[in-house]
Amino acid sequence: MIMKFNTIIALTFILFCATFKVNAQDSLMIRKIYDEALVNGKCYENLHYLCKDIGPRLSGSTNAQKAIEWGKTLMESYGFDRVFLQEVMVPHWVRGAKETGEIIIDDKKIPVPICALGMSIATPNDGINAKVIEVSSLKQLDTLGEAAIKGNIVFFNRPFDPRFIETGRAYGTAGDQRFMGPAAAAKYGAVGAIVRSLTEIIDDYPHTGATLSSGKTIPAAAISTKAADMLSILLKGNQNVLKFRFKQNCKLLPDTLSYNVVGEMTGSENPNKFITVGGHLDSWDLAEGANDDGTGIMQSLEVLRILKSVGYKPKNSIRAVFFINEENGDKGGVKYAELAVKNKEDHIAAIETDEGGFTPRGFGFSGLPTGVLKKINQNWKPLLEPYEADRLIAGGGGADIEPLKTASKDVVIIGYLPDSQRYFDLHHSAKDVFENVNKRELELGSAAMAALVYLIDQKGLK
Amino acid sequence: MIMKFNTIIALTFILFCATFKVNAQDSLMIRKIYDEALVNGKCYENLHYLCKDIGPRLSGSTNAQKAIEWGKTLMESYGFDRVFLQEVMVPHWVRGAKETGEIIIDDKKIPVPICALGMSIATPNDGINAKVIEVSSLKQLDTLGEAAIKGNIVFFNRPFDPRFIETGRAYGTAGDQRFMGPAAAAKYGAVGAIVRSLTEIIDDYPHTGATLSSGKTIPAAAISTKAADMLSILLKGNQNVLKFRFKQNCKLLPDTLSYNVVGEMTGSENPNKFITVGGHLDSWDLAEGANDDGTGIMQSLEVLRILKSVGYKPKNSIRAVFFINEENGDKGGVKYAELAVKNKEDHIAAIETDEGGFTPRGFGFSGLPTGVLKKINQNWKPLLEPYEADRLIAGGGGADIEPLKTASKDVVIIGYLPDSQRYFDLHHSAKDVFENVNKRELELGSAAMAALVYLIDQKGLK
Repeated sequence: MIMKFNTIIALTFILFCATFKVNAQDSLMIRKIYDEALVNGKCYENLHYLCKDIGPRLSGSTNAQKAIEWGKTLMESYGFDRVFLQEVMVPHWVRGAKETGEIIIDDKKIPVPICALGMSIATPNDGINAKVIEVSSLKQLDTLGEAAIKGNIVFFNRPFDPRFIETGRAYGTAGDQRFMGPAAAAKYGAVGAIVRSLTEIIDDYPHTGATLSSGKTIPAAAISTKAADMLSILLKGNQNVLKFRFKQNCKLLPDTLSYNVVGEMTGSENPNKFITVGGHLDSWDLAEGANDDGTGIMQSLEVLRILKSVGYKPKNSIRAVFFINEENGDKGGVKYAELAVKNKEDHIAAIETDEGGFTPRGFGFSGLPTGVLKKINQNWKPLLEPYEADRLIAGGGGADIEPLKTASKDVVIIGYLPDSQRYFDLHHSAKDVFENVNKRELELGSAAMAALVYLIDQKGLK
Repeated sequence: MIMKFNTIIALTFILFCATFKVNAQDSLMIRKIYDEALVNGKCYENLHYLCKDIGPRLSGSTNAQKAIEWGKTLMESYGFDRVFLQEVMVPHWVRGAKETGEIIIDDKKIPVPICALGMSIATPNDGINAKVIEVSSLKQLDTLGEAAIKGNIVFFNRPFDPRFIETGRAYGTAGDQRFMGPAAAAKYGAVGAIVRSLTEIIDDYPHTGATLSSGKTIPAAAISTKAADMLSILLKGNQNVLKFRFKQNCKLLPDTLSYNVVGEMTGSENPNKFITVGGHLDSWDLAEGANDDGTGIMQSLEVLRILKSVGYKPKNSIRAVFFINEENGDKGGVKYAELAVKNKEDHIAAIETDEGGFTPRGFGFSGLPTGVLKKINQNWKPLLEPYEADRLIAGGGGADIEPLKTASKDVVIIGYLPDSQRYFDLHHSAKDVFENVNKRELELGSAAMAALVYLIDQKGLK
């Protein structure tokens, strides 16, 4: 009996040590990862180059091609095991010359800031000039019907709901106006559509973004929130006399050959199992695409650089992917998934960082087997807590990695969750520039993702 | 036996309902608080007034007095039960005219950005011009001794350690150079001191802040991090020929009568028990004191406004306090505690918000009875988690509420913890302006504090 008791004690002790050793090793590795990111971090200077030496890089543009070539060369300079491009045809939309918008009441003209929505068609050369029907939802179009809408401009003006704590949810519930509103208005005979910019901040910057470009289409533009508020007020007393006029000469050119850029550290045990971390290389054309999504691709690259720098040898293959064409087509994400099927690549997990380079809060997981989120919260949360990146919740992902779900049946799709408060102040507007990225916040994000990749590589997600 | 079992079941159920009801009530009240902050919030526009219509407000200045009067009037306009001033004498230091610094090597002069440290004395009219001894610690002064230091300028150049996750810790470990360095150098006969700005960011902005002004003093200035790096490099090859010259004509005027501003919602059950939330009204003079600590006082006021707006009737008295003179004397905080003793006010808790108006992460508690932090984490954390302000940790407080510790023996001292990454980029520099405050982040902070005040008022901290 005594022997047996001692045996139990000894076994418990060994088990405890083993557990402790694992945790201590993990803890030390994560500290190393953070030190590398914070002391020798490269993503901030890389982002500076991307923003200031290349700049806006919409799919199909010369700048996008420049960024692809630079990104590939940069990856090669870090000495990863493989660096390669994946060919993919992408849409090539161009904004054209100066866009103008004005509110006209009798002989008064008030210029207001607008920008064409991505994928929209142009107006005639002298613009569209029509009365304005303000609506707060797509449903309201059905109520109003063709009688009210035909020949007019539909003005979608439902603001962000400020009560959401995560601003992405406000974007999610307001976003139908931009993406589907113009096409829905076209069905009822509207001649144009203007959409309140998808942001809570009240200022003079219009925010672009893709609008549905199939079916019957009409010229569609975003209007700044300040101008939207003004237009709404002016409409109240002047519904019958107020007209809105806007001009834009954007166009859709033929599809262009472009590329995803992929860097890989090949796994020592399971070279054909992959953990992918990525963002998108393309950006809207109004600014530098700093937070959307320059930060994402520079962080993804940094994850690999950090793991290599600290001497980590992954069991599984780890990839950084610069996806092309997230903003107006998702062709890069779709192609990556297609090639994963074709090449029989087994993806364990894919992490997307496309919500800005802000302070990390944690990660959202989709596709985890039952019980695993709880296990992760028990075992990994304490490791990430000292770094304040320990919010590990259900749900999340990203447009580029979403297609992997069907390509790789057990893949876990993970969205990196930075603090969301500032993102939509900048998103798709002329304010999305390098100056609005904080060095430490960016670096902490790359470290949080490297730590998660390390944990997944070591422990799996089953 | 069956009866007894049923009784237990029934009691358990009642207890469960009671618990659930309380939680549901708390949960609903906290949602109300957040909605009020995010939909009808006033702190952003109040902060705009404070920054743009008043501006910098160092203790003893005309602007500080303006802010005090405006603050009192604003509190009165909200209809709190009591609004009053607390008289307190404060130091009155003024910076004077343009300050200049330059590195001189032979006949070359390189101008560099400097600013006098708060409470420093002036240089002679034609400045101080001397050789430079670079040190990385106060201890190094002892090693070097008078032989090396006498007649020279000591240059404190230990940078922020980027490895700390919370930047306040980097500030804490580098801060001795600014606060005690110049006085320590004076003891060894230095003729002046220049201190690397207390920030991690590398740029051209010098960051001021108080330096010890008792004992033997010498003129002391902060130098921008970029200039500090350059000076350090230049020193390496030119130790014997390089000189540094700086001019400043700051001075300390006689103490001035000033005030803390206090607004109060008087408690319905315990009018003489207090929960205080505050920040400091005074700011450094180089900018608008937006994040340090305009955000703090506007959030503190907002806590009361929110609670009143949602119709909450506190059990205990709740106060918003605009403390004066945190930056260079702490006289306001000391006076508040003195008056608490004199008036036999029993303080349950005091919360300070003086780490910027950034996204809330949680709160740090000092002086909690044993076991209470665990209880709070069990009961309150789930209520704050949906708002991502649920980091409830041991340790924390603030300079203004620290003196309450001795005044009120059971008081719990609480530091509001916003995200720390951006604070020291701005802190005490010309960049601390309204434009660097985000509306939602500010509002979320006021809501988090109002929620905590509500919970403390309802449940206590025992």
